[in-house]
Amino acid sequence: MKKVKIALLGLGNVGRGVFTILQQNKDEIMKRSGYEIEVSKVLVRDVTKNRGVAVPEEVLTTDFEEILNDDSIKIVVEVMGGIDPAKEYMMRAMEAKKHIVTANKMLLATAGDEVFEKAEEMGIMFQYEASVAGGIPIINGINENLTANKINELFGIVNGTTNYILSKMELENLDFDEVLEEAKQKGYAEADPTSDIDGYDAQYKLAILASLAFGTKVKVNDVYREGITKIKPIDMKYASDFGMSIKLLAIAKDDDGKLELRVHPTMIPETHPLANVYDSFNAIFINGNAVGDLMFYGRGAGDLPTGSAVVSDIIAILRGNIDTDNNNPVIRNNLWEKKIKDINEVESRYYIRVTVDDKPGVLGQITTIFGANRVSLKSVIQKGRKNDENVEVTLVLITHKTKEYLIKDSIDKLYDLRTVKDVENIIRIEDFN
Amino acid sequence: MKKVKIALLGLGNVGRGVFTILQQNKDEIMKRSGYEIEVSKVLVRDVTKNRGVAVPEEVLTTDFEEILNDDSIKIVVEVMGGIDPAKEYMMRAMEAKKHIVTANKMLLATAGDEVFEKAEEMGIMFQYEASVAGGIPIINGINENLTANKINELFGIVNGTTNYILSKMELENLDFDEVLEEAKQKGYAEADPTSDIDGYDAQYKLAILASLAFGTKVKVNDVYREGITKIKPIDMKYASDFGMSIKLLAIAKDDDGKLELRVHPTMIPETHPLANVYDSFNAIFINGNAVGDLMFYGRGAGDLPTGSAVVSDIIAILRGNIDTDNNNPVIRNNLWEKKIKDINEVESRYYIRVTVDDKPGVLGQITTIFGANRVSLKSVIQKGRKNDENVEVTLVLITHKTKEYLIKDSIDKLYDLRTVKDVENIIRIEDFN
Repeated sequence: MKKVKIALLGLGNVGRGVFTILQQNKDEIMKRSGYEIEVSKVLVRDVTKNRGVAVPEEVLTTDFEEILNDDSIKIVVEVMGGIDPAKEYMMRAMEAKKHIVTANKMLLATAGDEVFEKAEEMGIMFQYEASVAGGIPIINGINENLTANKINELFGIVNGTTNYILSKMELENLDFDEVLEEAKQKGYAEADPTSDIDGYDAQYKLAILASLAFGTKVKVNDVYREGITKIKPIDMKYASDFGMSIKLLAIAKDDDGKLELRVHPTMIPETHPLANVYDSFNAIFINGNAVGDLMFYGRGAGDLPTGSAVVSDIIAILRGNIDTDNNNPVIRNNLWEKKIKDINEVESRYYIRVTVDDKPGVLGQITTIFGANRVSLKSVIQKGRKNDENVEVTLVLITHKTKEYLIKDSIDKLYDLRTVKDVENIIRIEDFN
Repeated sequence: MKKVKIALLGLGNVGRGVFTILQQNKDEIMKRSGYEIEVSKVLVRDVTKNRGVAVPEEVLTTDFEEILNDDSIKIVVEVMGGIDPAKEYMMRAMEAKKHIVTANKMLLATAGDEVFEKAEEMGIMFQYEASVAGGIPIINGINENLTANKINELFGIVNGTTNYILSKMELENLDFDEVLEEAKQKGYAEADPTSDIDGYDAQYKLAILASLAFGTKVKVNDVYREGITKIKPIDMKYASDFGMSIKLLAIAKDDDGKLELRVHPTMIPETHPLANVYDSFNAIFINGNAVGDLMFYGRGAGDLPTGSAVVSDIIAILRGNIDTDNNNPVIRNNLWEKKIKDINEVESRYYIRVTVDDKPGVLGQITTIFGANRVSLKSVIQKGRKNDENVEVTLVLITHKTKEYLIKDSIDKLYDLRTVKDVENIIRIEDFN
């Protein structure tokens, strides 16, 4: 049996998962890779911290140079996250001709170009399956298994925390704040949940997925972003009345060379496979011009699922020629130039929930405004009085397909009406056709 | 741009799909593979037949030797199906150091060993993603992306025809025969549908998937098989009453080195992701000890979806070193020796529908028989009289988990009771835990 030494950068959640899998599935990994893997160094900030995993003391180091200068270490597994110092370490490891496995979505979303180019320049292998959607093989799926396709569209539930929250709200009729509190206690949400609930995490992930699916450079800021904090149980209720579910979707569409890139709460038909993705599960639904509809479903986070992707990537490298620098990693985000479509030009159907005075003529004023903007309404539903004293009622409008800027303009004009108290929520509807 | 010549063996449904994709997505394929692909020969039985695809006349040949002896042809794409002459052609092509892409489930399920060994011996690349579940990348998923895992279980809806029929029966309350007729007319079922409806197609596919998932040699006959012809609308109705759906599942479990391998109609909770796989879609649900639950969903058949897998496999080969014979394909079905569990030893819950005389004491007789076999009943439901004259009623029994042989023995003894008119159906229940 051949032997190979690898180093881990970081021993947090994912690092521990990787270490555990390497021990627990040693036989599987040896037979499938042809190598006995030795984790010879693990970079940590504090060697004295107890990490609940049996890493031998002499393996821990706080000095990256020890790893860099050890020529016997062939693969560097970056599971520390963040940009600084992860990026510097990764670049220097590549220069030392070490192969790379990384789980770092932030780094790939913001500096993918640079690291891919360095990998190509040095002829080393570079694997990053774990950077999006944990254990789901969506990166290799796109990069290796859908290469015959022009990918038309991609819809992802790529953030487990928000899917957990929305699932709970939908199934148990609970308030956002209430579920968020519970999610924090259970460890499903961070103490500062901004990155998840405001959609930043999904935005990073969509930038990576869209870059690969469309073979072009997508910047994080190319992706329009809205979070889930405005979703109320009443929106869930109305969605259900219309036969829909609300999910935080990461959406990427290639509209004839112009890319739509957006992360926002979305109403989708409850019969769609994505509508049945509950709890903290992730799923990515893709339409390719040859393969048709395809969906990948699984655990998008967690030590072992993410570790599964990292270790499978290590095995992929070991199956290559690890001792040569003639590897030819194909850079997959620079095949085509594409334009980004402004969010105002995006077409969608819309759900709009408005509070108005319960007076004659209000409905006419509202429909006139939408009509003047050529926004056609599919249905207008008036729900019972909100409050007897205020004599206010809720109107729910569902539009036909229209452009975003026409909706925005209509909403602005609604606010000019004295009878309109508030536009409570606007949620885009995706019909998948 | 580098150029490469390939040959197709066969120009049926899949072959046409491959040819269409190579033309339609030429730009994508060139950029992603680094090659301009020329289909320089297509082996057919009759060069005069109109095939609805613009293959140049001079490319068609009826003579395999033309392909075999042309050293400029680097990749042979076998899409003719069947064993004879596909196997002979494939073996000879490998001996001539041509790389292979195949969509041939029957060949892989029955002679996988031989062809894998030949590929290894010759150092050529051998790709077969299209052999199971059409466009769904389940073969590469298992072979490349789940390598860090010990796979515990695999559940597949791998036959589109039967899933179409069961979906229609469930959603529209129709008879099996009625739906089968309609499926034939729509081209979803063959004129002779035996291979699909009796589960043979799924049996082949499960043999391949289990071989790879468990790294062992699984023979087609190791897989227990039942088809869907006995399923009645009333079974669908009862399933629904219990919160379940009926699917033809291909099930493989590794019970501590002993493999359970079976294809049969299965009642599954309607909340499970597989229960929401409708129409002719396929899906494979896997549990790995690191990745947890994972599902792949998509089109399991059809010219373009299957062609997507074939062409992606061609691209995978082109990304390798096509001019050397130093490729080292890992044979993935010979890593471990495993035993096959006899179907009689399989544990499951069961749904049993019985017609009995509507007489006092019948229920007691029946429960006594099961009790004597240590089969514990979870529920017994008596449904209204079938027919006033016969005074017969339907009993539906749901058992707790028990071994198959105890069920069989109980059923045998039921037939000894004069009050039991018929055991109408027995369907295994899968709870996924």
